[in-house]
Amino acid sequence: MNKIEHIGIAVKNLTSSIDIYQRLLNTDCYKTELVASEYVNTAFLKPGENKVELLEATSPDSPIAKFLEKKGEGIHHIAFLVDDILEEMERLRNEGFTLLNDAPKKGADNKMVCFVHPKDANGVLIELCQEIKWV
Amino acid sequence: MNKIEHIGIAVKNLTSSIDIYQRLLNTDCYKTELVASEYVNTAFLKPGENKVELLEATSPDSPIAKFLEKKGEGIHHIAFLVDDILEEMERLRNEGFTLLNDAPKKGADNKMVCFVHPKDANGVLIELCQEIKWV
Repeated sequence: MNKIEHIGIAVKNLTSSIDIYQRLLNTDCYKTELVASEYVNTAFLKPGENKVELLEATSPDSPIAKFLEKKGEGIHHIAFLVDDILEEMERLRNEGFTLLNDAPKKGADNKMVCFVHPKDANGVLIELCQEIKWV
Repeated sequence: MNKIEHIGIAVKNLTSSIDIYQRLLNTDCYKTELVASEYVNTAFLKPGENKVELLEATSPDSPIAKFLEKKGEGIHHIAFLVDDILEEMERLRNEGFTLLNDAPKKGADNKMVCFVHPKDANGVLIELCQEIKWV
C-alpha cells in the first residue's frame, strides 16, 4: 500500500462541516461530489499531500446514516492508495482479511475502491483505492 | 497544515495488532516506543509517506484506556504536521477552536504536539505535531 489517499469523516451537515474544516485545515474545499450509489454527499479538502473527505448521508439507508446513528460524528474510514487494487485484494484475501466487496466498485473522486472489514483491523474501516485511468 | 503525519489507532494488545497491521499494510513495524508521561506504548509502521501509530494503554489512567472503554478499538486521532506549532496554535485559537493543552507537549517519535478538542471538529481528535530539532 502507498500513502494515505484520504481520511473519510462522517458528518451530520456537510455545509457547516465544510466551514469548520476550512478554518481548521486552513485550506479551501476544492470539490463536492454526490455519490448517488452510496447515498452520500462528499466534500474534499487537501491540506498538503493527503485529502480529507467529509461524508454526509443523503438517505436513512446510507452507510453514513447508520454510522452516525451508531457512533456519532467522527472518522469513518482511512483510504490507502494502491497501484493495483485487484492484486492487493488478492494479497489481503490470502492473508485472511475479509473484504466487504468481492470486486472493486466505483467510489467518489474517480476511484475504484474496496473495503476491508473493520473486525479484522482493530475496528478500523480500511479502504483501498486506485485512480481510474481513462484511455 | 501540511501532510498527515500519522493516524493513531487505539488497540487492546500491541503485539497482536502489530502482526495484523504488518500483514494489512504489507510493511514491517520499524519502531516501538514507550511514552511514559501519557501511559502508552506505541508502535509505528510507514506504508508510503504517512505513518500509522498503534497505541496501547499501560495503565487504566491512560487516555487510551479511557477511549477503549468508551468507544472500543479504532481510530483515536489524526496528526497533521505543521511548520510552526506555536503559530498554528495561535491561528486555531483565533478561529475559535479549543486546544486541549495550553503549550505544546512532548509526544512520541521526537515530536512536540498539541490537540484540538474533538467537539470542535465533528468528533475527530486532531493532533498538531512538529519535529523537534536538536541543535
